[in-house]
Amino acid sequence: MDTHVTEAPEVSSSTAEGETPWLDAREQRFWRAHLEVSKLLDYQLSRELQVHDLAINDYEILVVLSEAPERRMRMTDLATATLQSKSRLSHQITRMENAGLVLRQECPGDRRGLFAHLTEQGWETMQKVAPCHVRSVREHFVDRFTPEQIDAMYEALAPVAEHLRTLRGRS
Amino acid sequence: MDTHVTEAPEVSSSTAEGETPWLDAREQRFWRAHLEVSKLLDYQLSRELQVHDLAINDYEILVVLSEAPERRMRMTDLATATLQSKSRLSHQITRMENAGLVLRQECPGDRRGLFAHLTEQGWETMQKVAPCHVRSVREHFVDRFTPEQIDAMYEALAPVAEHLRTLRGRS
Repeated sequence: MDTHVTEAPEVSSSTAEGETPWLDAREQRFWRAHLEVSKLLDYQLSRELQVHDLAINDYEILVVLSEAPERRMRMTDLATATLQSKSRLSHQITRMENAGLVLRQECPGDRRGLFAHLTEQGWETMQKVAPCHVRSVREHFVDRFTPEQIDAMYEALAPVAEHLRTLRGRS
Repeated sequence: MDTHVTEAPEVSSSTAEGETPWLDAREQRFWRAHLEVSKLLDYQLSRELQVHDLAINDYEILVVLSEAPERRMRMTDLATATLQSKSRLSHQITRMENAGLVLRQECPGDRRGLFAHLTEQGWETMQKVAPCHVRSVREHFVDRFTPEQIDAMYEALAPVAEHLRTLRGRS
């Protein structure tokens, strides 16, 4: 894996708004490590969920719906909760509906669109898969840090998540 | 955005190999923050690259090829470098070929498959886009940490990246 930011010396970073310095060596190695862990972890967790015929996004939908009141959610809220576009979510829910995991239904008396419901089969699938997924998350990520590292990284990441959430809400 | 690991008390994590404990509150908030930052940052950087008609994976290909000797790479090596499946990379390179950014060519005297070359237009595109991308990476991620946080997170993430790379190589 390589990086998304090159230090290529032939490329100038001067712009109308002034210079943006390239990442220095320490910033660069951190940025590469972050990208690599994000990408490879996603790949590894996806692979381990495939055994259960689930994509990683399917699993996320199962979790979100299982935590929602009455195990259902308006499609627009589900799109927001899972940071997906409505069209992409719609395709995914169709696939999951065909697999018997969720059901799309209009809510009586609510004309603001469709709800996605977790089916009994979807709930049972989550119960079966969740312990395996927790094991994967621990083995490949969480258990590889000390408690001090976990707290320090949370402190560092939380404001960045907040910043990015705000930007996302605005778009 | 929600999490990929639920603490749902109704779900038991006992398995044939023994208990895997659920994430505790501190592990859980860290795991959620990591997922959220990964996902939202990818979204934000993608959005800012769209202005230049590039997907984030396209930009990565441009960077990797621009750093390769003679600005070209065997397709199989490019798939490894960008952690993509060969079939997915092939589709992507077709799109980028249609946009004039890369060229697929057989290498004379080498029968082990095709090479992807960066075109002059691809190189110029990267020169134009790179300063904007660095600005995005700084604004939404790197510049939001102290130098101490950057070093500490690199120390924590590097062994995890190494572990995941090894797993990936084995599969």
